[in-house]
Amino acid sequence: MDLKEKAILKLKQRGITEKSMAFLVWKLQKKYNPSLTKKECLKAINHVLNKREVLHTVLTGIAIDEATEKHLLDIDIQNIIARDESLYGIDEILALSIVNVYGSIALTNFGYLDKLKPGIIGKIDRQSHEKKCNTFLDDIVSAIVAAGCAKIAHQKKNF
Amino acid sequence: MDLKEKAILKLKQRGITEKSMAFLVWKLQKKYNPSLTKKECLKAINHVLNKREVLHTVLTGIAIDEATEKHLLDIDIQNIIARDESLYGIDEILALSIVNVYGSIALTNFGYLDKLKPGIIGKIDRQSHEKKCNTFLDDIVSAIVAAGCAKIAHQKKNF
Amino acid sequence: MDLKEKAILKLKQRGITEKSMAFLVWKLQKKYNPSLTKKECLKAINHVLNKREVLHTVLTGIAIDEATEKHLLDIDIQNIIARDESLYGIDEILALSIVNVYGSIALTNFGYLDKLKPGIIGKIDRQSHEKKCNTFLDDIVSAIVAAGCAKIAHQKKNF
Amino acid sequence: MDLKEKAILKLKQRGITEKSMAFLVWKLQKKYNPSLTKKECLKAINHVLNKREVLHTVLTGIAIDEATEKHLLDIDIQNIIARDESLYGIDEILALSIVNVYGSIALTNFGYLDKLKPGIIGKIDRQSHEKKCNTFLDDIVSAIVAAGCAKIAHQKKNF
Repeated sequence: MDLKEKAILKLKQRGITEKSMAFLVWKLQKKYNPSLTKKECLKAINHVLNKREVLHTVLTGIAIDEATEKHLLDIDIQNIIARDESLYGIDEILALSIVNVYGSIALTNFGYLDKLKPGIIGKIDRQSHEKKCNTFLDDIVSAIVAAGCAKIAHQKKNF
Repeated sequence: MDLKEKAILKLKQRGITEKSMAFLVWKLQKKYNPSLTKKECLKAINHVLNKREVLHTVLTGIAIDEATEKHLLDIDIQNIIARDESLYGIDEILALSIVNVYGSIALTNFGYLDKLKPGIIGKIDRQSHEKKCNTFLDDIVSAIVAAGCAKIAHQKKNF
Repeated sequence: MDLKEKAILKLKQRGITEKSMAFLVWKLQKKYNPSLTKKECLKAINHVLNKREVLHTVLTGIAIDEATEKHLLDIDIQNIIARDESLYGIDEILALSIVNVYGSIALTNFGYLDKLKPGIIGKIDRQSHEKKCNTFLDDIVSAIVAAGCAKIAHQKKNF
Repeated sequence: MDLKEKAILKLKQRGITEKSMAFLVWKLQKKYNPSLTKKECLKAINHVLNKREVLHTVLTGIAIDEATEKHLLDIDIQNIIARDESLYGIDEILALSIVNVYGSIALTNFGYLDKLKPGIIGKIDRQSHEKKCNTFLDDIVSAIVAAGCAKIAHQKKNF
């Protein structure tokens, strides 16, 4: 299994499919491109998941979430991550490694998604208050969706 | 007149007062702090406008907008800035110099404001389609408001 | 003339050729890849100059430098840019729009180049103290070279 | 013990004292300020270590290094972090949460330090090839030192 397959598998184990991220891209971008299809959005997500930096971020972020769930980290940082304290911003910073690569459109979409948490992003964020720790996952998914939106926006303009 | 007074004056000449930015901070943050007053938000905006990097960004961004209005720049970049092409992202990048200093909460609020353009941000963005060029101004105002929101959020937590 | 040709022409008019930037990439990266050729580095620079965001940054940054030279901007920001005050950091921020797209290797190389200013970067930086304003240009060139270095580093690893 | 004391203790356990970071600030900044004392640099480092985001980064980064040493993470990301692969850039991204807060001077100093790895930074980087994992630590120390440099540079200019 290569790095991409592993990252996609990890996302799936945490409840996130490529299709569910593509659906959010479609919901966000169809107002700018009424003819946009879900298939095009799936291709955009797939393009994002080809980048090594994206895969590194996915695997690192989920590894921190899982280590937190298993109580493997030092108690102080453990508690801060588990509660996803409002002033803990390392999860957003990690997600920037995905967002930065896709430029300004990705950046503004990331902020928007991270604040409103629509669809699956809200779902995994809410799960996080129970037994699971999705502190890093929800920002990573927001970042991948935001990058997918930027990819679509750049494609539509023939450059 | 010092740099801060000049930046505030420039903003005012372009239709933006400290009070109008404080009002947006209040609208965004009152749901997290029901007892938040507009006066506290004005103090937060004032705190943001004490930072040298913020003042440099305000003065540089407005200078580019004004040079564009007066047709002083090379025709190619002139046209791109004047139309604020959807793929022109230098205005958002410039605004990052304000947002970065205030951390993750500023970042997500910036994306949110830049996408939804509530209140005065939308107003100056719409003016931009007529005779004025506010390509850089709307992102700068979004960034100052986002930084103000982060300031409020950090204050409320006694650290 | 398309946007890329215009950006390359503008750089040339300010004393910067693709070849001179490729030479810096080669000097920085040959220690990691002894068989690296200057031709490969020229291809990497060319790849960087295919990105729309890079072209926007080049044209915007040089437009600000030229407006400063012609005394077209407001006196306060004019003086700050013309002197390239050590605490004026908008030029570095603008360059981030190039660096961010190429990830961490670009980021560290940018910091290194911007601090040491080797070769042509130092040359245009020194010119800036005379009649010309190269405040934005030297950071833009550092950013393009840093992005070229990252491109080379990523190519060498077959992913 | 509060968060700051814990972060300082953690750094000490990994071989990094405030004094050793202050020494690097002094070495980098004394050329710009010949009268700069080591005590002033220690104060600057202390100022950096007062910021909550810095403490979060220190504790998160060291937690990942330690989890890697103890083989607690999934094998794939474990191996990538343990080897600190040249194309793994999440450590640099995490360090940006410190660097961003201190602006452009911090950014260029960070790139410079991360590339040249002088003094203790090189020492912990070399240790990393043996039994310890310092993949995140060396970038975090570079970032704290770079932020200290920016603090000194901003102080010297009375604003």
